[in-house]
Amino acid sequence: MELISTVAQLRARLSAEASVAFVPTMGNLHQGHLDLMHQARRYGRCVVASIFVNPLQFGPNEDFDQYPRTLDDDCEKLRGLVDVVFAPGVNEMYPASQTVFVAPPPIASELCGAARPGHFQGMATVVCKLLNIVQPQVALFGKKDYQQLHIIRQLVAQLNMPVEIIGGETVRAIDGLALSSRNQYLSEAERAEAVFLNQTLRSMREQLLSGARDFGILEQEAIRALTARGWSVDYVAIRNQSDLKRACAGDQYLVVLAAARLGKTRLLDNIEVNLHA
Amino acid sequence: MELISTVAQLRARLSAEASVAFVPTMGNLHQGHLDLMHQARRYGRCVVASIFVNPLQFGPNEDFDQYPRTLDDDCEKLRGLVDVVFAPGVNEMYPASQTVFVAPPPIASELCGAARPGHFQGMATVVCKLLNIVQPQVALFGKKDYQQLHIIRQLVAQLNMPVEIIGGETVRAIDGLALSSRNQYLSEAERAEAVFLNQTLRSMREQLLSGARDFGILEQEAIRALTARGWSVDYVAIRNQSDLKRACAGDQYLVVLAAARLGKTRLLDNIEVNLHA
Repeated sequence: MELISTVAQLRARLSAEASVAFVPTMGNLHQGHLDLMHQARRYGRCVVASIFVNPLQFGPNEDFDQYPRTLDDDCEKLRGLVDVVFAPGVNEMYPASQTVFVAPPPIASELCGAARPGHFQGMATVVCKLLNIVQPQVALFGKKDYQQLHIIRQLVAQLNMPVEIIGGETVRAIDGLALSSRNQYLSEAERAEAVFLNQTLRSMREQLLSGARDFGILEQEAIRALTARGWSVDYVAIRNQSDLKRACAGDQYLVVLAAARLGKTRLLDNIEVNLHA
Repeated sequence: MELISTVAQLRARLSAEASVAFVPTMGNLHQGHLDLMHQARRYGRCVVASIFVNPLQFGPNEDFDQYPRTLDDDCEKLRGLVDVVFAPGVNEMYPASQTVFVAPPPIASELCGAARPGHFQGMATVVCKLLNIVQPQVALFGKKDYQQLHIIRQLVAQLNMPVEIIGGETVRAIDGLALSSRNQYLSEAERAEAVFLNQTLRSMREQLLSGARDFGILEQEAIRALTARGWSVDYVAIRNQSDLKRACAGDQYLVVLAAARLGKTRLLDNIEVNLHA
């Protein structure tokens, strides 16, 4: 496994590779990331992981400085799983002030985008840059960040980027909590409570599968239940899987998405619900 | 020479090409375009020209519908010069509503961008799409559209697109008028007057080379002279070649740019001025 930190060296290393699968990450790797690396091996003879905490996708009051950076541990975990780790510094990715951006579709201002203005533009811009640097045939992203995955699929399709996007299933702790680098911010009490987010979504899924169709009421009940237990809820939303628009009567492929804070830690989760017989 | 109209067919045709040089155009080809095709041959074993009048870069009151479309004549001119002509329809380039854009740098709202809001975002978006579709090693653009070339260089650099951008010299009629597809909109009298735009820029260059340094006065004199002859001037501007910012005392590599209308026809021109000894 090679650790590479410059664009020029990475391009030289990959120039003769006929088939590259790519997993972009912000590091602090957990089993969710590692599952993506395993999966990547099916798609590329050469597997590249990137580790880059992208300042462009953090708001001024967010946790960019505090975000855990654990490059040595991450490389240890990746050994044997990937062929190349690309870990550029901020100056390598942004040698001059970035003034060209990928402007994401309108859905980027809803759901997580409502609480994080500019987040998805920063994410879309760095993903576009990374895809252009690595030039993989396939790139893999976790479904835990469902809206992010949707926006990446849109940008790849609408900008005709020559890459196939694969979504990897969310990996969970035994109690159901979706794995996330931000889970380590949780106190012991918060960690015990955190599972309630996934339980809420699973309960909504059961109700949908049992025939409940008043999406607004289901959302409001979930928000009330979380709030009553001390969560600060950004959103709980039942959406159409294909375009993330509000689910309508008759939609069969739904996804329930939520973002809520426990203390200072913002947690995400989602669950797909397929109503077809 | 092959004429291809779909992305899938183009990718299949180019998949085995090791070296592709690309010249994007809006068709209605003149000698300026054809010079770029000749030049492209130096950079690619396979030369691809595209012909696509991009609705995204025309404003609501601009000449999108009227813009001359002459595909048969264009193909005749390209025969022997290029290997592939890519001429997609609007639905092929925009199969769904385009909601992802390449947002260009702030210079895109100055100069031509001041009179054409959204123009450079539309241009940057389609150039990004075309580069991703063709995946050339080299792409060539005319220096007549100097600001466009600057913005394309910025988007390629800042989005890490794996392509080299080459600027081709402006080709002129014998009297100095820069060749442009829009010249054919000119009446005979307007065509005779049109040369004055280039004469104005050449006169400004002479004054700069002779030591004139009050850029604002030079610009105002040029605007006055054009206006007095019946032109409607969008701008005459002395800028720094490297970033297109207003030229400052001591700058050595300048470019004088102008856009002005004769009747309904908007003409562009520019001239580089190198003050170094």
